[in-house]
Amino acid sequence: MLKEEKVFKDAVHQYIYVKHPLIWDLINTKEMQRLRRIRQLGTSFYTFHGAEHSRFSHSLGVYEVTRKIISSFQRNGYVAWSEEEILLALSAALLHDIGHGPFSHSFETVFHFHHEDWTCRMLCEDTEVSKALRTYQSDLPEKIKQVVQKTYENGSIVSLISSQLDADRMDYLLRDAHFTGVNYGTFDFDRIVRMLRPYDGKIVVKENGVHAIEAYLMARYQMYWQVYFHPVTRSSEIILRKIFQRVKDLYLMDYTFHIFIDPLPKLMEGNMDIHDYFILDESFIQMLLMQWINEKDPILSDLCSRFLHRHLFKYKIVHEKEGILEYAQETLSKRGFDPKYYLEMEYPLDMPYDIYQSEKDHKKQPILIMTKEDKLIEISKRSEVIKSISGEKRGVHHLYFPEEMVQHLTIPK
Amino acid sequence: MLKEEKVFKDAVHQYIYVKHPLIWDLINTKEMQRLRRIRQLGTSFYTFHGAEHSRFSHSLGVYEVTRKIISSFQRNGYVAWSEEEILLALSAALLHDIGHGPFSHSFETVFHFHHEDWTCRMLCEDTEVSKALRTYQSDLPEKIKQVVQKTYENGSIVSLISSQLDADRMDYLLRDAHFTGVNYGTFDFDRIVRMLRPYDGKIVVKENGVHAIEAYLMARYQMYWQVYFHPVTRSSEIILRKIFQRVKDLYLMDYTFHIFIDPLPKLMEGNMDIHDYFILDESFIQMLLMQWINEKDPILSDLCSRFLHRHLFKYKIVHEKEGILEYAQETLSKRGFDPKYYLEMEYPLDMPYDIYQSEKDHKKQPILIMTKEDKLIEISKRSEVIKSISGEKRGVHHLYFPEEMVQHLTIPK
Amino acid sequence: MLKEEKVFKDAVHQYIYVKHPLIWDLINTKEMQRLRRIRQLGTSFYTFHGAEHSRFSHSLGVYEVTRKIISSFQRNGYVAWSEEEILLALSAALLHDIGHGPFSHSFETVFHFHHEDWTCRMLCEDTEVSKALRTYQSDLPEKIKQVVQKTYENGSIVSLISSQLDADRMDYLLRDAHFTGVNYGTFDFDRIVRMLRPYDGKIVVKENGVHAIEAYLMARYQMYWQVYFHPVTRSSEIILRKIFQRVKDLYLMDYTFHIFIDPLPKLMEGNMDIHDYFILDESFIQMLLMQWINEKDPILSDLCSRFLHRHLFKYKIVHEKEGILEYAQETLSKRGFDPKYYLEMEYPLDMPYDIYQSEKDHKKQPILIMTKEDKLIEISKRSEVIKSISGEKRGVHHLYFPEEMVQHLTIPK
Amino acid sequence: MLKEEKVFKDAVHQYIYVKHPLIWDLINTKEMQRLRRIRQLGTSFYTFHGAEHSRFSHSLGVYEVTRKIISSFQRNGYVAWSEEEILLALSAALLHDIGHGPFSHSFETVFHFHHEDWTCRMLCEDTEVSKALRTYQSDLPEKIKQVVQKTYENGSIVSLISSQLDADRMDYLLRDAHFTGVNYGTFDFDRIVRMLRPYDGKIVVKENGVHAIEAYLMARYQMYWQVYFHPVTRSSEIILRKIFQRVKDLYLMDYTFHIFIDPLPKLMEGNMDIHDYFILDESFIQMLLMQWINEKDPILSDLCSRFLHRHLFKYKIVHEKEGILEYAQETLSKRGFDPKYYLEMEYPLDMPYDIYQSEKDHKKQPILIMTKEDKLIEISKRSEVIKSISGEKRGVHHLYFPEEMVQHLTIPK
Repeated sequence: MLKEEKVFKDAVHQYIYVKHPLIWDLINTKEMQRLRRIRQLGTSFYTFHGAEHSRFSHSLGVYEVTRKIISSFQRNGYVAWSEEEILLALSAALLHDIGHGPFSHSFETVFHFHHEDWTCRMLCEDTEVSKALRTYQSDLPEKIKQVVQKTYENGSIVSLISSQLDADRMDYLLRDAHFTGVNYGTFDFDRIVRMLRPYDGKIVVKENGVHAIEAYLMARYQMYWQVYFHPVTRSSEIILRKIFQRVKDLYLMDYTFHIFIDPLPKLMEGNMDIHDYFILDESFIQMLLMQWINEKDPILSDLCSRFLHRHLFKYKIVHEKEGILEYAQETLSKRGFDPKYYLEMEYPLDMPYDIYQSEKDHKKQPILIMTKEDKLIEISKRSEVIKSISGEKRGVHHLYFPEEMVQHLTIPK
Repeated sequence: MLKEEKVFKDAVHQYIYVKHPLIWDLINTKEMQRLRRIRQLGTSFYTFHGAEHSRFSHSLGVYEVTRKIISSFQRNGYVAWSEEEILLALSAALLHDIGHGPFSHSFETVFHFHHEDWTCRMLCEDTEVSKALRTYQSDLPEKIKQVVQKTYENGSIVSLISSQLDADRMDYLLRDAHFTGVNYGTFDFDRIVRMLRPYDGKIVVKENGVHAIEAYLMARYQMYWQVYFHPVTRSSEIILRKIFQRVKDLYLMDYTFHIFIDPLPKLMEGNMDIHDYFILDESFIQMLLMQWINEKDPILSDLCSRFLHRHLFKYKIVHEKEGILEYAQETLSKRGFDPKYYLEMEYPLDMPYDIYQSEKDHKKQPILIMTKEDKLIEISKRSEVIKSISGEKRGVHHLYFPEEMVQHLTIPK
Repeated sequence: MLKEEKVFKDAVHQYIYVKHPLIWDLINTKEMQRLRRIRQLGTSFYTFHGAEHSRFSHSLGVYEVTRKIISSFQRNGYVAWSEEEILLALSAALLHDIGHGPFSHSFETVFHFHHEDWTCRMLCEDTEVSKALRTYQSDLPEKIKQVVQKTYENGSIVSLISSQLDADRMDYLLRDAHFTGVNYGTFDFDRIVRMLRPYDGKIVVKENGVHAIEAYLMARYQMYWQVYFHPVTRSSEIILRKIFQRVKDLYLMDYTFHIFIDPLPKLMEGNMDIHDYFILDESFIQMLLMQWINEKDPILSDLCSRFLHRHLFKYKIVHEKEGILEYAQETLSKRGFDPKYYLEMEYPLDMPYDIYQSEKDHKKQPILIMTKEDKLIEISKRSEVIKSISGEKRGVHHLYFPEEMVQHLTIPK
Repeated sequence: MLKEEKVFKDAVHQYIYVKHPLIWDLINTKEMQRLRRIRQLGTSFYTFHGAEHSRFSHSLGVYEVTRKIISSFQRNGYVAWSEEEILLALSAALLHDIGHGPFSHSFETVFHFHHEDWTCRMLCEDTEVSKALRTYQSDLPEKIKQVVQKTYENGSIVSLISSQLDADRMDYLLRDAHFTGVNYGTFDFDRIVRMLRPYDGKIVVKENGVHAIEAYLMARYQMYWQVYFHPVTRSSEIILRKIFQRVKDLYLMDYTFHIFIDPLPKLMEGNMDIHDYFILDESFIQMLLMQWINEKDPILSDLCSRFLHRHLFKYKIVHEKEGILEYAQETLSKRGFDPKYYLEMEYPLDMPYDIYQSEKDHKKQPILIMTKEDKLIEISKRSEVIKSISGEKRGVHHLYFPEEMVQHLTIPK
């Protein structure tokens, strides 16, 4: 243990407490520090100017939430986990996002990779993180990888880090609410912690915690519609995706960029190693966007300028899809906009977020209530409110396009 | 006026309200958008991980604080300013930081310029801001420049934007407290607004507002010692300054950098124009620092790595300066560290911040209380608490150096 | 107008602003001051120790909410109400609870009267309130009475004071959450105000306010289940009701109380006048309960002791009512408890609260959404979440009885 | 230990946790429940309408603050106190105010007793509290009495409950700020807890906690001037004192009150026992004031009416005392007001509150800083800010009198 507990002042949890030297060492690795250069909410700062917080802050928060839950379990004698097991859980919480790249959603779509894979590589290949873990225990990287991939044998720990009621979500809802300033993301975190019980390889909720969970899921519901699916945020992500697409296409056409520094060529060829990936932070991307405003390719230059100067695409709601996309493509083409780069139809739920899914086959474990008679019931069976938002498909299609086209595109209501 | 009032959700003021189209247009200029890429608190995020908010958020906040004060003045009939005058004040509030560059304090020290000068150039030269202002009223850029330079004829407006109790400070204290999470920066903003009165070309405070002002100045006092002068923040700024100094020295030695893109050469030569300056944001600098880790110059490479991976300089407190610097220089040299780049002695108050200065000849107007008998009294004459922190010089010298030297440097207590 | 605006520091709205002398005079009447001696949440302080705030605080809050809404309507030009009309609305907001008696729910049930009737008498009979109103405008008492009784011609004003989205509810949800400390009662009040529109004699909500209304109704839903229907609160109210019932029965049996001061005899006879009613505050009732602990009637003495010393009735949940009440009555009788005073079966929704009712024939106007096409739609037609809680009947029967009986009463699960 | 930890929802500390059955039993005694009928801030609700919280809430809060500090001491191994010692501290924290009577300050002044004496009697005589304590350990009442009287051998426990930085003050500053709504009473409680150390029979503060203590003492300073010494609160207390004085005088004159129930006669004779005292709560007093409005003695009737209907005395500030009191007495007499009951000169610091006293001979132990060299230094020696408010005597004399006299009394400025 550290001679003296270290604390970080935190806007959400007041303080984040670190006692174990491994956690301290992990925080000080260059891979963890790199997360300071990647925003938690991607381009959302264009919609909510306060949304400028990084994945570094969030990672500390997930660690702290996990620490608090485990500490409650221990105080009440619900678990008898070894120190190694607890340290595994805390490390996994801290490191679960270590493989995130810049503006992940847009980036990964165009370049076809998953940040989860990079997380596993960061854990196991030649990194400071990997070294710190191995110094403590040689198979720790492998075990954390299992937790991240949800194959680890102690299911309760997997549940803590990744389920429909995990430390990840609990931190980001509270944190994103604090930094954007919206009042929707709050719920009674202390009460939820008190209601959680490890049971049969899962984390379940005591029956009289149902209302607290309802409040948590309503916070999630509101944050999704108000913040995460906000059309202005979607618009900025779409432009970014179009930029990456254009760069990729130009590269394939042997276009010569006036600036095209490492590791861009490897990114294009799909053969980045862990050290190449390390450089890819949001500073790097934003600097490139700024430089590319001066590229001679008019599409790339224009899109970069729109993104950086926040001249985002406008949108119209599409209630009836039939033929709309073709019509819009034609109309844009006529006005000189290549629809491949200037048009997108999107349905908000085509996204790595979801509100709440009750099905068992969902990739994240549903929330289970333990009744007074010790039966487990999936929560939407017990709450009309949760049932009403469970698996919700309320979204409508949005058509995104340049502001110049607003007058020219007619969408039937 | 805009058909419908625009609102921005804000974590500090709840909402920021925009009614006038000029304000809306100014917010949408690329110069204002650029402020999203410059952090409000420079390198403080290394001390308080939440301190990642930008000057863009703060600029909106200063606008809103100014709007609220003017609106209170109007509602109560304290002023009869024309619409033009009000718009001038609001625009000046919004634009007062428009010339800030990346990590201003370190940057300006090494390259010898002042962001105030760039603010004036941003207002008056060929920019979107300038164009928007001129479209509304041809001499508006010039008038805002006068407000920024404190030469404008209506002293009350100058006081609002720049004095010891101005909209700038009121916003940043509240904002920095919210984002860092410290609980020291709060005070009763609504009550202060209610106690302000324009009087004889100044903004003064009604006598029964003294306690509210005490609370405001104590918030300032606490924020300065807890946040702004924090030695960890100072340490990271010192490394950054050393990096800039090394780059400058290498350039003068005709060193060939493997990456040295525009506008770096002009920056070195001191002949940047407004378009060069525009590119200089924190993404640009951070990307360079990352690239320079691979420079062959060992000092530059090492310093960049220390900064980005947060291996900051350690410090010791120096009570007796006599001979210490020479001793430290020698000791570092012996161990292979060039003291020019690896050593710094600093006194916290050598900084553009101050706690509170009561003297009349200070560049910012002191806070004046209006007694029930309509006399004006400088506030430290009325409050022992304020007197106790006024012009405070409690700081002690800190010596900063690489962690490797901690054991080797002995500083007498 | 008052020479200087008066302000009250308020824990919910920060400040409450009073400009008009009539409002100031009304606040200073003895009838308004009497509301300081009547708690907003009756016996809820036995469940949430912070719930000790009075109807006085709440009445100021309803006034402030109404003031803010009307001020928003004026600023945006949505209404062109005369000063008289606005003052009527503000006065009605302030005075809407002026007729509330001590522990209203229990009290009114036993003694068969309605606080609404007393509100009307307070407005129109010989009171300081009535005098203040008449001094300003002779028919003002009558008009406010019409607002309270929902017969006033300007339906928008009635809606403001009394509907499913009125100033009353908006204040009490926020206030009760603040004082109890629960985190469920918050919603984005500023945004709701911005979304409200007076339309065709009603207050309706702009379509893009739906999510804010969902959050408001979920706050209401949570507060109802967590606070207002809490079984411990119900238990204390039941004991109080039993006490009043016993006193009434003893009076009818010509029992001689050792203390039975004015206006108790008139209360028993049902002929209190407005001055008698004025004396009936919660101090008066609590003092009586304390004195009655020493009555020789064992039931009255025992019940008063249970209430004051918080030895409340316990409860069991009854899923199947058939025969339970008879069984419980018999069991209590056998153990020496008169079931008339020691037993109660209750269904939480038999209460003057409700969660949300969408039916048109409900006594409070439902919440209407105004679509972009200017159609009005009842909100539960637009929101699955609201539909799921609308007219909810989730309650189960609770059987309340003395703790001594817990072991002896067997309720099938 | 209780089978399951009990929690109370609390507006200040979020939750209050009870694990030990003795604490639970003590909370459920009728003497603790009685504190629900005595307000924490006496008549302050006439100034801040939210100040309606009771000594019951505060007592739970002091318990929780003490529990948190001890828990931090244990976690960090600073103390090795036995379970008995800890339970003693927690019980003392919970019970420290058990002897408070209604509107203590006014009441005690007139009837010459001290609530501390009643606290000791509540602990040791025939009460439920005493019984619960003795059941657990026969000498516990005596030991708690020693803690309350500051004679207990373990000085650290005395310091926790009663010193210039005790659990009592920390809770009431935070609580009174929350309920009144003022923003001055907040400080970083978690950090202070982390900086406290038991040392040589005292609780001292680590050197780098100085800023946190400054913030705490500034909160105290602000609360004293803004809330506790507020002239409107003083005015209402003065009227109350005058009422009690008049009742006492009338009793001595053999006046016959139309209502004068137990235990008033014993109160007048000064021979109340613990059961008489129990009945004396604020309901009892308020009911009497209401009844006494109808007394035939015009002074008593008038004063009660002024108090209940909030027609408080007005005040003027007296800079030069010479002859003023005599002048005011004469002037009042001429206008028919008996100055004994209608006039008061007061200096705010003649009160059981103080801001901060550094002297060693003060009845509360001063705050000591432990330097890095393990020396103890009284804090005002280390902080100019604290020195500036230490022993402050800024108050001015206030003269209180009926509003009708405002025009007739001329006080030189």
